[in-house]
Amino acid sequence: MSASPLIRQLMEALRCLPGVGNKTAQRMAYHLLERDRAGGRQLSRVLVDAMEKIGHCSDCRTLCETTRCALCASGSRDTSLLCVVETPVDVEALEQATGFRGHYFVLMGHLSPLDGIGPEELGLEQLNERFSRGDLDEVILATNPTVEGEATAQYISELARGHRIRVTRIAHGVPMGGELEYIDSSTLSHAFSGRREVNG
Amino acid sequence: MSASPLIRQLMEALRCLPGVGNKTAQRMAYHLLERDRAGGRQLSRVLVDAMEKIGHCSDCRTLCETTRCALCASGSRDTSLLCVVETPVDVEALEQATGFRGHYFVLMGHLSPLDGIGPEELGLEQLNERFSRGDLDEVILATNPTVEGEATAQYISELARGHRIRVTRIAHGVPMGGELEYIDSSTLSHAFSGRREVNG
Repeated sequence: MSASPLIRQLMEALRCLPGVGNKTAQRMAYHLLERDRAGGRQLSRVLVDAMEKIGHCSDCRTLCETTRCALCASGSRDTSLLCVVETPVDVEALEQATGFRGHYFVLMGHLSPLDGIGPEELGLEQLNERFSRGDLDEVILATNPTVEGEATAQYISELARGHRIRVTRIAHGVPMGGELEYIDSSTLSHAFSGRREVNG
Repeated sequence: MSASPLIRQLMEALRCLPGVGNKTAQRMAYHLLERDRAGGRQLSRVLVDAMEKIGHCSDCRTLCETTRCALCASGSRDTSLLCVVETPVDVEALEQATGFRGHYFVLMGHLSPLDGIGPEELGLEQLNERFSRGDLDEVILATNPTVEGEATAQYISELARGHRIRVTRIAHGVPMGGELEYIDSSTLSHAFSGRREVNG
C-alpha cells in the first residue's frame, strides 16, 4: 500500500458502510478527494448530526430527530388502525405502495431469543399499553415472512386477542409478475392454501 | 417519503459517493442509524480531516497529507527512473503488481482540451523541470491506453526527448489469461504488431 496514512484511514472508515469492501472504499476515497471535496465535507457534517440527533419516536418507535415522528404527530391519520412492522424502511415501503392511512408501530427488529432480543427489546410492553387504550379496530401484522417474523407476528396477535382486537396478517403468495415454476415451494404452498373465491 | 428530514438529508449526502443511488443510500443510512452509530461518527471525523488536510505531494503531485509523499521522501528509491501515471490509484496498482523501485509523477488526469485540461493543469511544466535536472535515465509512460492517455503519453515523450532522456511505454496486448477470440480487435492488433522474438 502506497496510499498515505490518512487516505488509508479514510478507506478503513468507509468500510463501515454496508456492501463496501476494500476496492469500493478505495474508489470512494479517491473520488471524494479528487472530485468532490465539498460533497465529502457535507457528508461529514450531516453524518455527525444524524448520529447524534436521531432517536426514536415516543409513540411508534421509528427513527426520527423529533419526540414524535411526522406520521404520529399528523392529525389526519386514522387512529383506529395500527400496522406493526419490523423496521423504519418497512414503513417507507408501505407508505409508498399502499393507501394505508392508519398508524404504525415499529419493532426495530424481531423476536430472536438466541440474540437476546425478547419482548422487552421490541417495545411490546408499550404496544400492549397501546392495545389496552381500547380505541383500536384492527391490528395489521406486517412483519417479514421469515421464521422470526412469523414468531413475532404470532406473539403480537396473542397480545392483541387478549384485548379482543381484530388481528390481520398481510397476505403471502406468488408475487405479482412472478412465474409459478420459479417460485419456491413454501411460497407456492402458502399461495395455494390461502386461495380465495373468485367473484364473477 | 415518510423518513424524517434529517434521515432524508443523510441519504442525500451519501449519494455523493460513486455508485450510490437512492436505494443504496437508504440502506446505508438505516444501517448506520440502527447498527453502527460509532462507525458513522468515526467516518464523519475522518472525512472532514481528510477533506481538509490532504493535498498534493510537492514532488510527484500524488495525494497526501504531508509536503512530500512517503515514496518521494524515501531515500531507498532509484532517482534515475521516473514512471508517469494518471492517478494516485495507478501508483498503488503498480506498487502492488511490479517490482519498480523508481519514482512516480502523478498527472492527476490526462490532456483533455474540451474539458479545459491542458499541460498546465497536469503539472507538465514541473515535469519538464524534473527532466531538465539531467539525472534521469528512463521515463516510463504508464498513462491509460485510451485516446486521451495516448495523446498525453505522446506529449510527454516529446518533452522528454527534448532532454535526450530514454522514453518507454508500458506494453499493450492480450491480458494474461485472456482468450484471443474475446479480445477486442484494437487490442489484438496492438498485440500482433508489437510481437517479440522468442528466444529458444
